[in-house]
Amino acid sequence: MPSWSKFDIEMMSRAIQLAERGRYTTRPNPCVGCVIVKDGIKLAEGYHQKAGFGHAEVNALAALKSANLSAIGATAYVTLEPCSHFGRTPPCAQTLVESGVAKVVVAITDANPQVAGKGIAMLREAGIAVEVGLLQAQALELNLGFMKRMRTGLPWVTVKLAASLDGKTALSNGVSKWITGDASRNDVQKLRARSCALITGIETVLADDPSLNVRYQSLGSLKDELDVTELHQPVRIVLDSKARLTADKRLFSITSPIILVSTQAYPETVIFPAHVQCLQFAPDNDGRVPLISLFHHLGKSYNQVLIEAGATLAGKVLELGLGDELYLYQAMKILGSHGRNLVQLPDYQAMDDIPSLQLKDSRQLGEDRRYIFRLGKE
Amino acid sequence: MPSWSKFDIEMMSRAIQLAERGRYTTRPNPCVGCVIVKDGIKLAEGYHQKAGFGHAEVNALAALKSANLSAIGATAYVTLEPCSHFGRTPPCAQTLVESGVAKVVVAITDANPQVAGKGIAMLREAGIAVEVGLLQAQALELNLGFMKRMRTGLPWVTVKLAASLDGKTALSNGVSKWITGDASRNDVQKLRARSCALITGIETVLADDPSLNVRYQSLGSLKDELDVTELHQPVRIVLDSKARLTADKRLFSITSPIILVSTQAYPETVIFPAHVQCLQFAPDNDGRVPLISLFHHLGKSYNQVLIEAGATLAGKVLELGLGDELYLYQAMKILGSHGRNLVQLPDYQAMDDIPSLQLKDSRQLGEDRRYIFRLGKE
Repeated sequence: MPSWSKFDIEMMSRAIQLAERGRYTTRPNPCVGCVIVKDGIKLAEGYHQKAGFGHAEVNALAALKSANLSAIGATAYVTLEPCSHFGRTPPCAQTLVESGVAKVVVAITDANPQVAGKGIAMLREAGIAVEVGLLQAQALELNLGFMKRMRTGLPWVTVKLAASLDGKTALSNGVSKWITGDASRNDVQKLRARSCALITGIETVLADDPSLNVRYQSLGSLKDELDVTELHQPVRIVLDSKARLTADKRLFSITSPIILVSTQAYPETVIFPAHVQCLQFAPDNDGRVPLISLFHHLGKSYNQVLIEAGATLAGKVLELGLGDELYLYQAMKILGSHGRNLVQLPDYQAMDDIPSLQLKDSRQLGEDRRYIFRLGKE
Repeated sequence: MPSWSKFDIEMMSRAIQLAERGRYTTRPNPCVGCVIVKDGIKLAEGYHQKAGFGHAEVNALAALKSANLSAIGATAYVTLEPCSHFGRTPPCAQTLVESGVAKVVVAITDANPQVAGKGIAMLREAGIAVEVGLLQAQALELNLGFMKRMRTGLPWVTVKLAASLDGKTALSNGVSKWITGDASRNDVQKLRARSCALITGIETVLADDPSLNVRYQSLGSLKDELDVTELHQPVRIVLDSKARLTADKRLFSITSPIILVSTQAYPETVIFPAHVQCLQFAPDNDGRVPLISLFHHLGKSYNQVLIEAGATLAGKVLELGLGDELYLYQAMKILGSHGRNLVQLPDYQAMDDIPSLQLKDSRQLGEDRRYIFRLGKE
């Protein structure tokens, strides 16, 4: 790996910071940032804002041109390998070649094994010096969903749970308002806003009749960086194995897309609105929607999927190792043994069998604590 | 309340710091510190180290004398009202009068309503200026157990719990080694070391066969301030309503005092060693040891009582509002719904009925999180 200077690190950090601005809007594209420098001076910068709009490199070069500056002999710092294919825009690698830059520093190569390295090869063939790997860990964090999907065909799966200190989600009678506070609930809105799709179970819909949309007013400080028109509602997915859902739920009154996943057809008398798509799978051994098949299906379209579900579905995802990340919101309360359990898991007989959690972050959110874990062995 | 200077605050802070040195050794006496100053210069300091040894004021005056200095016209800062009675030592108020100090600043008055103010009155009658209330909240924290016992006749009750993120203390088969890590377990050793008595239930003894002593080697940094000879083993109390305990338990092999509390006599064939005292209460409505009566009994001798028990006993203490403080050690693990519950509580029907917790501290201890709560309404 090349040895990078403090200046290199600063420029790539800036590119990553720019890329982050797109994290609620670029899907299904990745977040990418670009900084162009010459003689130790930053000349221009850009990031990818939205699918169908300019890529980061193109935006940075456009900014350079607007300032009547030339890219000839300059260095471009890019958080992701420039693309090599014609999509809705020409390949960025070609645009960089044409710009006259002398060097390109790339944080990470493209995640798709079929594509990885082609953009870099295109640059090198044109005589441009290319260095790869600067701040790669940080750049990877930017696009966990995109990278996983390109690599495996599966979405990045975040499981959201909320419970009391003794791991209860509700009293025995189902009362759960409000175990966690405003700050936690608003944080969940941000989680939703960054997700391509949100999965819940039929039991949750029947019990709470939730809308499962993102409420712009609850986004807090995120409102400063995200205009209401840029807010993307995640596709709402309900797992309803036995096709029990009826069209009178609150969920349907909001017209962003909904997918109902079942193992049998809905009765002909149940008519869902036009923004609802029904998806049918052959049942698994428990007669439920087969999660692995479902997730492979979702991986065709979605980078990041959020699971907001009860103990059964959340537990199944943990048990099958399908989750990548766990957000646990913990209220400083004790509900006692009669309360409802957080996750249904097998009756483990040894500590070695329990799910592996790697703590990534732990912080106070209002009166609650929020933990972020990566799931699975490190 | 008088207005105190920055210097006053510094001196009382120092007195509190000195008092803290006695927190593992003074019981059943309170921790007290004293600083003597003249013309803005600290001349001497002292603290109460152990029952039967010099009080803080006496020790500070002795230090002054050793340095060939006079207390005449000086100011003494004391964390607790000087005593006014002849005990194993003469009253400190009288000693202060005889020393010639001109002024005494007191953080808090004696907790015992029968005694409170008498020491201060004795000083004032001798013409000494007395100011009361400087850093009183901090001074109160020093002696929560002593103060509560003097005021109410009940000990300060700390409940210790340890569980996974989903509030489980063990797998369904009872396996619990080790849910929490070394740092947490060593912290519990410190909790024990500062406690006058430690209460557990018969189920815990039968299931785990614990020694329930303080292991000096596990005290970590506390070893630097506490010599092994100063280590005080808490009295071990086992609640054994049905007198089921037998003399072969590990508990008995350590010769520090043990109290077995039951509601019936032990069989004549069960012979406990000489360091074991049996205490019998009339059963409560559930046929168990009546906790309120027991705690009143313990309040005659013990400032601080630690409860290390299973879901039933710990839950009962929370339910009855007998706990003052909760230490919760939380492992970053999820055991699942089959695991054993943390606390048995009534089947609450409304959130207003759950126990009140006030968060006092939250920190990482090794891989675990430790929460400290005050129990009950603020």
